[in-house]
Amino acid sequence: MALVVQKYGGSSVADARSIKRVAKRIAESRRAGNDVVVVVSAMGDTTDELLDLAGEITPLPPKRELDILLTAGERISMSLLAMAITKLGVKAKSFTGQQAGLLTDAVHGRAQIVDVVPHRVHETLQKGQVAIVAGFQGVSRSNDVTTLGRGGSDTTAVALAAGLGADVCEIYTDVDGVFTADPRVATSARKIDRVTYEEMLELAAGGAKVLALRAVEYARRYEVPVHVRSSFSTKTGTLVTGTYGDPIDPNAPASQKDTQMEDPIISGVAHDDSEAKITVVGVPDKPGMAARLFEVVAGAGANIDMIVQNVSAGETGRTDISFTLPHASTQATVAALDAVREEIGYLALEDDDQIGKLSLVGAGMKSNPGVSARLFGALRDAGINIEMISTSEIRISVVTRADMLDDAVRAVHTAFGLDSTEGEAVVYAGSGR
Amino acid sequence: MALVVQKYGGSSVADARSIKRVAKRIAESRRAGNDVVVVVSAMGDTTDELLDLAGEITPLPPKRELDILLTAGERISMSLLAMAITKLGVKAKSFTGQQAGLLTDAVHGRAQIVDVVPHRVHETLQKGQVAIVAGFQGVSRSNDVTTLGRGGSDTTAVALAAGLGADVCEIYTDVDGVFTADPRVATSARKIDRVTYEEMLELAAGGAKVLALRAVEYARRYEVPVHVRSSFSTKTGTLVTGTYGDPIDPNAPASQKDTQMEDPIISGVAHDDSEAKITVVGVPDKPGMAARLFEVVAGAGANIDMIVQNVSAGETGRTDISFTLPHASTQATVAALDAVREEIGYLALEDDDQIGKLSLVGAGMKSNPGVSARLFGALRDAGINIEMISTSEIRISVVTRADMLDDAVRAVHTAFGLDSTEGEAVVYAGSGR
Repeated sequence: MALVVQKYGGSSVADARSIKRVAKRIAESRRAGNDVVVVVSAMGDTTDELLDLAGEITPLPPKRELDILLTAGERISMSLLAMAITKLGVKAKSFTGQQAGLLTDAVHGRAQIVDVVPHRVHETLQKGQVAIVAGFQGVSRSNDVTTLGRGGSDTTAVALAAGLGADVCEIYTDVDGVFTADPRVATSARKIDRVTYEEMLELAAGGAKVLALRAVEYARRYEVPVHVRSSFSTKTGTLVTGTYGDPIDPNAPASQKDTQMEDPIISGVAHDDSEAKITVVGVPDKPGMAARLFEVVAGAGANIDMIVQNVSAGETGRTDISFTLPHASTQATVAALDAVREEIGYLALEDDDQIGKLSLVGAGMKSNPGVSARLFGALRDAGINIEMISTSEIRISVVTRADMLDDAVRAVHTAFGLDSTEGEAVVYAGSGR
Repeated sequence: MALVVQKYGGSSVADARSIKRVAKRIAESRRAGNDVVVVVSAMGDTTDELLDLAGEITPLPPKRELDILLTAGERISMSLLAMAITKLGVKAKSFTGQQAGLLTDAVHGRAQIVDVVPHRVHETLQKGQVAIVAGFQGVSRSNDVTTLGRGGSDTTAVALAAGLGADVCEIYTDVDGVFTADPRVATSARKIDRVTYEEMLELAAGGAKVLALRAVEYARRYEVPVHVRSSFSTKTGTLVTGTYGDPIDPNAPASQKDTQMEDPIISGVAHDDSEAKITVVGVPDKPGMAARLFEVVAGAGANIDMIVQNVSAGETGRTDISFTLPHASTQATVAALDAVREEIGYLALEDDDQIGKLSLVGAGMKSNPGVSARLFGALRDAGINIEMISTSEIRISVVTRADMLDDAVRAVHTAFGLDSTEGEAVVYAGSGR
């Protein structure tokens, strides 16, 4: 007996057969006595098909209209799912973002949730019915339809779970949970049973696609327990919570939590080959230069990830600044930096799109110097050169050549004893929106 | 310089190319200085495809969910159309029924409009922008999405035109206007230049599909001039108004109106083969019997069209009652009448689905006895038997054998001098929803 928010991605509702399968699962959860709220994405490739249609009309569709177009996708999946559940004898009602009270700002295409007022969802639950809510969408103060951007449905689910005070937010996907590495790269990767919000944030930021970064941030802020699990099995997946304690089983022995919190616990290895690196060579080493540089970069619209600054090898009084950013932003950023070359007075600009980033995530890293030593040692033994290093409390990231990234993931995964003893083959895929 | 509401059906926005063509037309109207509001249906077969999807899930989808599903269609077409117009340099915004203020009752699948509060459409026009509104849909007081049923988009257009005080409501279709008969049957049929609401009502009720009956009723009540015209040409179509006077040209000579109003003016010949006939034989001829009979019929959900009562030929003190109704309602109605056979005390029940109905529509019929004589004479000369007759102020309808209906249409069309002297081939088709 719990209030459960379940989120199903596009691949889980790709056709009528899949929708019926998901409906059965939802009906069973309801019949087991749970109050069930379901957040659903558009069916399979619907979103891409709608984008193609828009592309046939114009290369630059107005964002407000694009939002209206794309939200048709969830309207279709949510009503079909409500029909399928009703057919199984369990009453269900579907709600758009507007009807479910998902209030956002007016930034079309990547709106932020400003409030969740789920009156109608509450009412529906009180009548013993299942509430289906369209993922990815909301409504602005001016009653315009908005979309939340990438990972939007995960975020809808977590926001609703927070707004409703749900016991757990279940993210259903086509893999068994969060893994110690991408199983397509490290075949011996293991499912992680439990991970903290912070570690999950680092994993998501490091390239793990199973759960949207934004949804994790939201879950952390509102302390929503998230359960990432497979829609194809009833196995327990990965619990994402504030501590290693079990939020669902408050009777778990406290000693267990303590033990777990003492040692460094490696959650996993994430990797990302979607970034490029830009190095600004010979920046005059005086106050305000870095600030001016990143003002220019921000002005070009680039979303910076790692930043590293070193004293320049060749000249004195100068420094080299490197940073990573999405491939798609490289061109505009190089152009923007070119334009201020004289003003800033740097010597040269280098860009490199053949890099890969590996992130080792876990608790207790900073207080265990052995961790970074073991990481760098493993890469050295595998003959992999490190080009950049960046660290946080619970993460160490290194940049390598792109074509060495997979080897690096496997070497580090093994070095930290993460390899599964079972060796089962798992299919790993990113979640949709 | 006028406020124009334009409605485009599904065939006019069937694909990206058609949408661009329609957008061009709308942009031209706006550039000519008009305030333009566009009502749009779902693209081509979208509605049928969505219905098929629902059919794969369940044979009896909950009506509320079916409405949410189907309204995804207009959401797609309206946003694409807004994009296409914007691309041409004319600003356009699309609105759902809810956003456009189309308030309805809560009868899902065939909601009635209770109010039109088009604040946002007004605002959009005031900014010099084109407002695109989803046809066929509205919102109930409880903020649930509703659909208006068959002919819904025509009704949306007329209701908006009334609510905005538009100068004209243009219904764009794939034919040149309303014809004196279905050109697929009577190849010599001519386009009607002008017709009154009442005549258009009779033509629509008699089977003409170019304009939805409901939209005509709405237009008549709120005196909205309706212009039925082709989306493939700029030719003037058929004007549907309160009188034969020209609402767009108030300087037309009054004498012309007077002349036109004196003689019987035949608007056209409509036909309908979608009905069946039920005859209740030997009903006791005492007060209240007909009332009880049609109570039972209404209880079975049948929408009765013609009713004819005659003294029964065989027995005295008894009467035969015949009525026509949609094919689809026949089975349920026969079953309902069977159940009250003893109570009412009738002798037999006959049903016949091989009937056709022909309606001659025009002004001044009742005061010109020659009209019915000429109609019956034309049918006699063509060897066609008349099974039922029903008349109104401006219509005479007869029921014939279904397989004689086309011959009947041609014979009557010729007898009343409606045949075109040009003999151009016209393609005639019903409008969508």
